[in-house]
Amino acid sequence: MKTTATKNTAILLAQCPDQQGIIAGVTDFLHSNKGNIIKLDQHVDKELNHFFMRVEWELDGFLIPQEKIEDFFKTLIADRYEMQWKLHFSDQPARMAIFVSKMSHCLYDILQRWASKEWETEMPIIVSNHTNLEYIAKRFDIPFYHFPITKENKVEQEEKMLELLAQEGIDLIVLARYMQIVTETLIGTYRNRIINIHHSFLPAFIGAKPYHKAYKRGVKVIGATSHFVTEELDAGPIIEQDVVKISHRETVKDLIRKGKDVEKLVLSRAIWLMLNHRILAFQNRTVIFD
Amino acid sequence: MKTTATKNTAILLAQCPDQQGIIAGVTDFLHSNKGNIIKLDQHVDKELNHFFMRVEWELDGFLIPQEKIEDFFKTLIADRYEMQWKLHFSDQPARMAIFVSKMSHCLYDILQRWASKEWETEMPIIVSNHTNLEYIAKRFDIPFYHFPITKENKVEQEEKMLELLAQEGIDLIVLARYMQIVTETLIGTYRNRIINIHHSFLPAFIGAKPYHKAYKRGVKVIGATSHFVTEELDAGPIIEQDVVKISHRETVKDLIRKGKDVEKLVLSRAIWLMLNHRILAFQNRTVIFD
Amino acid sequence: MKTTATKNTAILLAQCPDQQGIIAGVTDFLHSNKGNIIKLDQHVDKELNHFFMRVEWELDGFLIPQEKIEDFFKTLIADRYEMQWKLHFSDQPARMAIFVSKMSHCLYDILQRWASKEWETEMPIIVSNHTNLEYIAKRFDIPFYHFPITKENKVEQEEKMLELLAQEGIDLIVLARYMQIVTETLIGTYRNRIINIHHSFLPAFIGAKPYHKAYKRGVKVIGATSHFVTEELDAGPIIEQDVVKISHRETVKDLIRKGKDVEKLVLSRAIWLMLNHRILAFQNRTVIFD
Amino acid sequence: MKTTATKNTAILLAQCPDQQGIIAGVTDFLHSNKGNIIKLDQHVDKELNHFFMRVEWELDGFLIPQEKIEDFFKTLIADRYEMQWKLHFSDQPARMAIFVSKMSHCLYDILQRWASKEWETEMPIIVSNHTNLEYIAKRFDIPFYHFPITKENKVEQEEKMLELLAQEGIDLIVLARYMQIVTETLIGTYRNRIINIHHSFLPAFIGAKPYHKAYKRGVKVIGATSHFVTEELDAGPIIEQDVVKISHRETVKDLIRKGKDVEKLVLSRAIWLMLNHRILAFQNRTVIFD
Repeated sequence: MKTTATKNTAILLAQCPDQQGIIAGVTDFLHSNKGNIIKLDQHVDKELNHFFMRVEWELDGFLIPQEKIEDFFKTLIADRYEMQWKLHFSDQPARMAIFVSKMSHCLYDILQRWASKEWETEMPIIVSNHTNLEYIAKRFDIPFYHFPITKENKVEQEEKMLELLAQEGIDLIVLARYMQIVTETLIGTYRNRIINIHHSFLPAFIGAKPYHKAYKRGVKVIGATSHFVTEELDAGPIIEQDVVKISHRETVKDLIRKGKDVEKLVLSRAIWLMLNHRILAFQNRTVIFD
Repeated sequence: MKTTATKNTAILLAQCPDQQGIIAGVTDFLHSNKGNIIKLDQHVDKELNHFFMRVEWELDGFLIPQEKIEDFFKTLIADRYEMQWKLHFSDQPARMAIFVSKMSHCLYDILQRWASKEWETEMPIIVSNHTNLEYIAKRFDIPFYHFPITKENKVEQEEKMLELLAQEGIDLIVLARYMQIVTETLIGTYRNRIINIHHSFLPAFIGAKPYHKAYKRGVKVIGATSHFVTEELDAGPIIEQDVVKISHRETVKDLIRKGKDVEKLVLSRAIWLMLNHRILAFQNRTVIFD
Repeated sequence: MKTTATKNTAILLAQCPDQQGIIAGVTDFLHSNKGNIIKLDQHVDKELNHFFMRVEWELDGFLIPQEKIEDFFKTLIADRYEMQWKLHFSDQPARMAIFVSKMSHCLYDILQRWASKEWETEMPIIVSNHTNLEYIAKRFDIPFYHFPITKENKVEQEEKMLELLAQEGIDLIVLARYMQIVTETLIGTYRNRIINIHHSFLPAFIGAKPYHKAYKRGVKVIGATSHFVTEELDAGPIIEQDVVKISHRETVKDLIRKGKDVEKLVLSRAIWLMLNHRILAFQNRTVIFD
Repeated sequence: MKTTATKNTAILLAQCPDQQGIIAGVTDFLHSNKGNIIKLDQHVDKELNHFFMRVEWELDGFLIPQEKIEDFFKTLIADRYEMQWKLHFSDQPARMAIFVSKMSHCLYDILQRWASKEWETEMPIIVSNHTNLEYIAKRFDIPFYHFPITKENKVEQEEKMLELLAQEGIDLIVLARYMQIVTETLIGTYRNRIINIHHSFLPAFIGAKPYHKAYKRGVKVIGATSHFVTEELDAGPIIEQDVVKISHRETVKDLIRKGKDVEKLVLSRAIWLMLNHRILAFQNRTVIFD
């Protein structure tokens, strides 16, 4: 959601080794070109001596033409500070692919937000290793791609997926309770652009059946964690976490039921942050400018 | 806090293998002796086929004299259902020993509740392996016992502690950030009567320095867990857990500061439940009748 | 969700003036007829001297035939204690009518739970004063009834609604952001069976545009309230409330977006409680046996 | 708590009508004088076209001497943008006066944080209209001033208070459950420097006995609100709010007990924000840079 409904904006996400004068440099670049800053956030990780920044400004009135901003910013600012950075424009919504298996709660939560225009995003494809949820894709008129996965065909199937993703110009992959471990090729191609929802408050209950483990341990809260997918299972940079209280009265079935509500919200909040370019990842941690 | 301010009550905590007719048996025993039930809670663990119950009734008008209730209940009810059970009376508040090391936030939180009569309990002793907090004990006029612990003297010192605890008629031991692992002898003597506060949402971040581990993992919530102490570190039956949200802006120092607030509340809630006889433990899980 | 997946149960909800022996009376009635109690909850409102109870027992093995339980219970128990009571059977799921206007978030949340069989309920009709959401009803193959409302036709239209509701055997009406005040006739006919979601933590911000009011007041939390509908606006017995934190960064548009997530969960939790016969209402308050 | 433990910093809080170039102006002023920015936060209220800023920088290496910063900043920056602003230095901790009546939970919570050096603040006086808590002040060796208040002597007593506050160089007044309405003179003298804790989630349950009102209304959450004191009762700019869930099982006494825990945390969080110069107030709303 844009801060102003009517005006197009540019959003810069940047990080670099910390040094004096970065903010002054960036804001002077914007100000001297008549860029009106709507929102500026910065963070310094003192331990790692690393600088993070998000700045959003109005394109209307900005003296550098939209198509030249990248080039000018790179030359005048980014290269001087050794920045890793990315520029987004509010009039170019991200294209999202949803991966699902058999459970529908996260999928519906996402589709409702998209269909009601709560989110500005394009949703060209739904991908699944099963056909159980194909009827939902049909209800929402979204093309559904079925890639059944076996040990033998996994690599081959993912190659086809990668082709499809490239062809569709996908920016962001959401694993909405997709019960498959994705390969390092996919992870590498979409580094910090694949969001997974894990049904526990990580790092507790990594891997399969976290609600069963939670029940067995007798915990009094359960939770969910959305994170970027990395090569190590359930160990990627955490975007969002939340919990719900439980009691001895709840069975495993109740934990699953209650947990679903946390899962879908924690996943959707992460997607919203991503669609609004509010997440920076560095060394297995995230900086969230909300 | 008693449900009624003015009337003395008896509180029964019981558990046994499940079978038909237990509630009918207990309530008939009470009703036929003119016991007015104020609060009855029960729970059946269907998986383990185990029954749990808490019932509180007014002593005023009850036909069995207070000193004979135990004997009558045992013979007429408990033995028939193979119950593990315990009877408490609201006019006999528990006697609590607080164990501390160097941090004062949990200690003050406990003392404030006791001093302001929020809790009905007796607090005859504070025990510590350091002298740092002795001045607080003095401020509240509570005898302070210093047992410095080394590898060599640990067993010997705990023997002295056990003597002291016995002599003082201690019902409940609270480890209010007591930074020592207690021995199996102490644990066995006060089985399910030693409450510890661990500064993470268990089972995440077991052991030392959980806030440092939480920071390193990049979690977005931190928490605290109060639990009964068992022979295995940080693995006893959990009584209460809570969390607080954190962001990338928080350093380890901030996590420690924010975490303290969760710790003290989660510990004090557990103590309140214990003082009100609302906790039953079975096979590493708790049933909390709140 | 039944406590046991496989067995049919009876659920009794009852309330009456408090007196000694009610629990003993009910449990003896069940026990002497071989009724295995799965869950028993009771509550005494000491101030009003009023007794509340919920008890669930297995029908399998119960000596009184299912169709005669009502009669027997009435004669042997209920009449003696002047009970207001209702008997439910787990194999007879409630029939729910959803009323909507233009916003889809609550509607989808409900439909997803029904379609995925998270809830055991029947959903024969969707009713609306607008046609905006008709396409969603179609997607889920649920008959959609359009009753446009004007000042002039309101009474007449509600009469038609009442006919439809009666004809469809509706047990429960859910106002899922239905932006119309319903008449006293409808309220009276479905006393404590119409659930509304209000988009504030009542009693703050009663009436229209609560998010605008919340923004103007500068609150740091917003919330939602599900409640039974009574003759007085937003003043009925509260079933469930929850909140979410906000900051100065959030505009009214953001409050609306964040609030929707609270609304849909708070409404769905209330419906779940209702479908599982866990709510008793008395004098504008609810007793929730969760 | 300073962001860096070892280095002294300057903290600027500023607000002004929004226009292009403010951030560029301020950061250029700092950068060109070798000021290393530790933390910069800004906010634009688009509706009111108002700009807010907090910036913290290291004094070490800053080319303008500490005692001249105010003058230079005023002339070179503040006056040009018509700023309302205030400069703070991390080596000059605020001096806080606590006002209490008879309840000790907030007072102890504050004193524990001060005594354990969780907060960097000076606490020269405790003021009360009763003597009930004098013994606590004595325990912590803080001078206690008793100003009994009657309708007749109120104005006169507050004059004496104002003298005392001036004499002690008080920066911040905390009403820690001080059960007196303070006069407009005091409010005007310490505009946006008097923090009150109200025991409800405002704007619900304004005025006396909020827990009794909450019980009567049958709400399912209770809360607390810390806010700046203004001339209108319980209507000042809100700093922090939080809630806790309750159920039908809780009596008014239980609400009071549970509410105290929310009150003390919500008040202490507000004080921490104040001590760290993170609050800006404008037109009955606050901007909190946490």
